[in-house]
Amino acid sequence: MVISRRRRGGSSRPGKAWSLEGVKAKEEAGMEKVNIGTNPFLLPMPMVIVGTCIGERPNFMAVGWASRVNVRPAIMSVAIGRHATAEAILKTGEFSINIPSVDLVPQTDIVGMVSGSEFDKSGLFEVFFGSLGKAPMIRQCPVTMECKVIRDVELPMDRLFIGEVKGVWSEERFLSGGSPDIEKVRPFCLTMPDNRYWSVGPAVGRAWHDGIGLKDRLPRLP
Amino acid sequence: MVISRRRRGGSSRPGKAWSLEGVKAKEEAGMEKVNIGTNPFLLPMPMVIVGTCIGERPNFMAVGWASRVNVRPAIMSVAIGRHATAEAILKTGEFSINIPSVDLVPQTDIVGMVSGSEFDKSGLFEVFFGSLGKAPMIRQCPVTMECKVIRDVELPMDRLFIGEVKGVWSEERFLSGGSPDIEKVRPFCLTMPDNRYWSVGPAVGRAWHDGIGLKDRLPRLP
Repeated sequence: MVISRRRRGGSSRPGKAWSLEGVKAKEEAGMEKVNIGTNPFLLPMPMVIVGTCIGERPNFMAVGWASRVNVRPAIMSVAIGRHATAEAILKTGEFSINIPSVDLVPQTDIVGMVSGSEFDKSGLFEVFFGSLGKAPMIRQCPVTMECKVIRDVELPMDRLFIGEVKGVWSEERFLSGGSPDIEKVRPFCLTMPDNRYWSVGPAVGRAWHDGIGLKDRLPRLP
Repeated sequence: MVISRRRRGGSSRPGKAWSLEGVKAKEEAGMEKVNIGTNPFLLPMPMVIVGTCIGERPNFMAVGWASRVNVRPAIMSVAIGRHATAEAILKTGEFSINIPSVDLVPQTDIVGMVSGSEFDKSGLFEVFFGSLGKAPMIRQCPVTMECKVIRDVELPMDRLFIGEVKGVWSEERFLSGGSPDIEKVRPFCLTMPDNRYWSVGPAVGRAWHDGIGLKDRLPRLP
């Protein structure tokens, strides 16, 4: 491991001191580490559509900030700004996460552009419900899940809703071995700030498998 | 909007009642909604490597459950099980998020397979530090960020660490217009339970743009 000078002695050039060996050459090659501010966007962000009920009306919103957060029970998180969707989740304690395929790019995009407080977005999709009464799901989405809020965390601009998954819905045609098959589901991702949607490309490896050859290189700790 | 019978009257066939028109045909075509349990994995999950310090030793762990959670300031979340990495974050209050390219699949994979309490994983990478003293970053990763914990949420099996981004680091060769360019960064995603890594494919649309044509179809609310 090459440790940075800053780490050892506190260089005034954070992010640069690592390249003690040949910093010049790396600078010339554009390989110098540069600070690009504090506004990262994790790439790629999986695009989902969050479903809620505003009163009796199903409402949908495109969300790029969703993640699994617990193994068992399955728990998901979605980060949502001060939108009608956040109000609805606070009122009902329920929401759905719908995974759209690339065929639904325009529909996903528009539900991220207009507010459920101004427009009725329910007509864009065929709606179905599972076990929860206020977590409307989208039939056109290959994989959908209904979530019950177990925690919510207020952040400076957004609110993080943490919901236990009460049911996951799909169709046989999207499954392989009983699980959703990404090549059949064909989800897509969002990148910002260039604001583009991306398909999923070819497989590049097997998890919990491709790294095993490196294990011998790792010193075992005393 | 086609609303499900369950929604209206409480059908005993959740996820089926939506298809009032021609449920038979859809069943035959394998288009019937089926409940596949409660163990979804959001597809695709962006793969990152979380960096921490165990004492003075940099440690790294592959994480698939990371997300942006707040706009300004930039705040990220990572969900981590009962691992050495979680202990380290609890002790130091700092961590890094490193975005590996497809060239780093094996290295990413192995740091997700062995524990930092048994093995010294620091030698796999060239390490540098930014403004935080306990958030080691990986020079080989095209985009890295250093985070300071502002909140952590204990969940049944995992702990969700919420960290404010204090600095993002990259190299000119990975940027376009000052921001990371996904086609230059070449990140990859994880799917479970098939445990495969996937590259990012061709662009399929423009966000906040491709849906605008559907706006006229949305009834404006009174």
